Amino acid sequence: MISEFELIRRYFTHRARRAVLGVGDDAALVNVRRGCELVVSTDMLLAGRHFLRDTDARELGHKALAVNLSDMAAMGATPRWATLALALPRADTRWLAAFSRGFMALARRYGVDLIGGDTTRGPLNICVQILGEVPSGMALRRDGARPGDEIWVSGALGDAALALAALQRRTRLEPAELARCAARLRRPQPRIALGLALRGVANSAIDVSDGLLADLGHILECSGVAAEIEFAALPSSTVLRRYLDRRIAREALLAGGDDYELCFTAPRRAREQIVRCGRRAGIAVTRIGRIRTRVRGAPRLIVHAADGTALRLARGGYDHFG
Amino acid sequence: MISEFELIRRYFTHRARRAVLGVGDDAALVNVRRGCELVVSTDMLLAGRHFLRDTDARELGHKALAVNLSDMAAMGATPRWATLALALPRADTRWLAAFSRGFMALARRYGVDLIGGDTTRGPLNICVQILGEVPSGMALRRDGARPGDEIWVSGALGDAALALAALQRRTRLEPAELARCAARLRRPQPRIALGLALRGVANSAIDVSDGLLADLGHILECSGVAAEIEFAALPSSTVLRRYLDRRIAREALLAGGDDYELCFTAPRRAREQIVRCGRRAGIAVTRIGRIRTRVRGAPRLIVHAADGTALRLARGGYDHFG
Repeated sequence: MISEFELIRRYFTHRARRAVLGVGDDAALVNVRRGCELVVSTDMLLAGRHFLRDTDARELGHKALAVNLSDMAAMGATPRWATLALALPRADTRWLAAFSRGFMALARRYGVDLIGGDTTRGPLNICVQILGEVPSGMALRRDGARPGDEIWVSGALGDAALALAALQRRTRLEPAELARCAARLRRPQPRIALGLALRGVANSAIDVSDGLLADLGHILECSGVAAEIEFAALPSSTVLRRYLDRRIAREALLAGGDDYELCFTAPRRAREQIVRCGRRAGIAVTRIGRIRTRVRGAPRLIVHAADGTALRLARGGYDHFG
Repeated sequence: MISEFELIRRYFTHRARRAVLGVGDDAALVNVRRGCELVVSTDMLLAGRHFLRDTDARELGHKALAVNLSDMAAMGATPRWATLALALPRADTRWLAAFSRGFMALARRYGVDLIGGDTTRGPLNICVQILGEVPSGMALRRDGARPGDEIWVSGALGDAALALAALQRRTRLEPAELARCAARLRRPQPRIALGLALRGVANSAIDVSDGLLADLGHILECSGVAAEIEFAALPSSTVLRRYLDRRIAREALLAGGDDYELCFTAPRRAREQIVRCGRRAGIAVTRIGRIRTRVRGAPRLIVHAADGTALRLARGGYDHFG
């Protein structure tokens, strides 16, 4: 059977461009640019919880890194380095080759060096740590939203959750529709370029990984503010719009996880600049509401339906221990 | 049931001393000192593989951080920040409280800030990433051993493996003996102070996590050299010495993992300085052999028995996919 060291050498060693010392010592050594803060995040992915058990290994390699890159995007950070800890039921070389292809292709696209890792035998578990850089004081945080800020989201929301519902047979889609939505679920695209463009423009940002209501909720809580959003303004794909009469599609739009779009806030005067940021980053940006002053006793987040009434919200989003 | 956010807030949020932004955003922000390289490592621990299933949660919290701190020690780095990703079968508050006590107590002792994490439901899996600092160019690496270097180890070897063998009923120890050895298994002490003292003194270093033969083997391979060590010189506890007639004790000494001592090499002229380093760090240091020039076809590592003959080696140590 393939040894741990051979496994790392074969699938996960590449020439690190920006590392003093890469994979193969007790630790890696890297230099953080002068004038930059180091940005650190980690995500753990489990079969049956964060991805379906039959997920293609290459797509899983992509997704494991993508969800971490999305955290860098939400901070306005440039991703630089990653570590990968992997528990595998067995050293399946075909699976590993496919997984590393997906992981490494995305790493190369964003200039990320894989500088360390750990492999062990056990129930499939993928833990990635991502390290990035941001000029000091320029990070996009959750606690910067101010009353009067407008709320924006990138891309379209809900397709990933709608695909998941269809794959789990909780709803039905046409095959071509499912294929389009499932691509969002399986190969999320981190909005790195948009995050970088929004530095110095947006007051706060988060990535939509747990659903819009939950993630916008984190901004509101960290910033001590309230918000109103317009259901009719939420950007959605043509597929999702076709099914807006289904409750499951509306929930996907408001509370579906796994979209990995950015939700951010900015003052009104930044409107045109934000549209330019989106254009430069090659992704649509849509205004969906406004930050309000927090009033004790009043709801923190109100969603207005098209007729002006407030929607009743069942569930705030996806909570890993909910 | 306790939510993920409440869980993080209750057990894993402490005021980060050296972080710009700690737990609670998409990522943490920290500043790496000018003139320092960032040192990065990760380890994943699984029940039944890296610890016994009935391991006390507090000891597990200690150990999960300790094995990562040990990587910092082996690099001569000052540990600064950690992230923790945790998969748990259920949100067991008693277990979490104990785990975080063990983890956080060790973090405080070494001034390490827990700056990020992820919790999810799944088979128990603990993934820690550690970040440290080392003055540029000063890290202790695996590839610096030179022919003529003397080989040293800190502390005593083999107690952890002997305890594991006794706990798994592969051998028997007196209760008091087991207690002493098991403490090494359950509460390993990272040799941070020694690693720091050895900067600029040792040519290479590694921590003994997979067993002396395997870990010294990594130094030899990375440095392109060979070595001879004296079995009789290997430092061991009084307990282990009592059982040296047992094959299992000899194997624990040579190939037992989990000791988390340092193995390092240095030129002969550094002898006295190394003894002073050990004294300052409060840990014994013992010379066990010498680095030789690599000769093709000859064994990379020879272990001399007390009578001068070379020992036959069965197994190089612990390999996670062996």
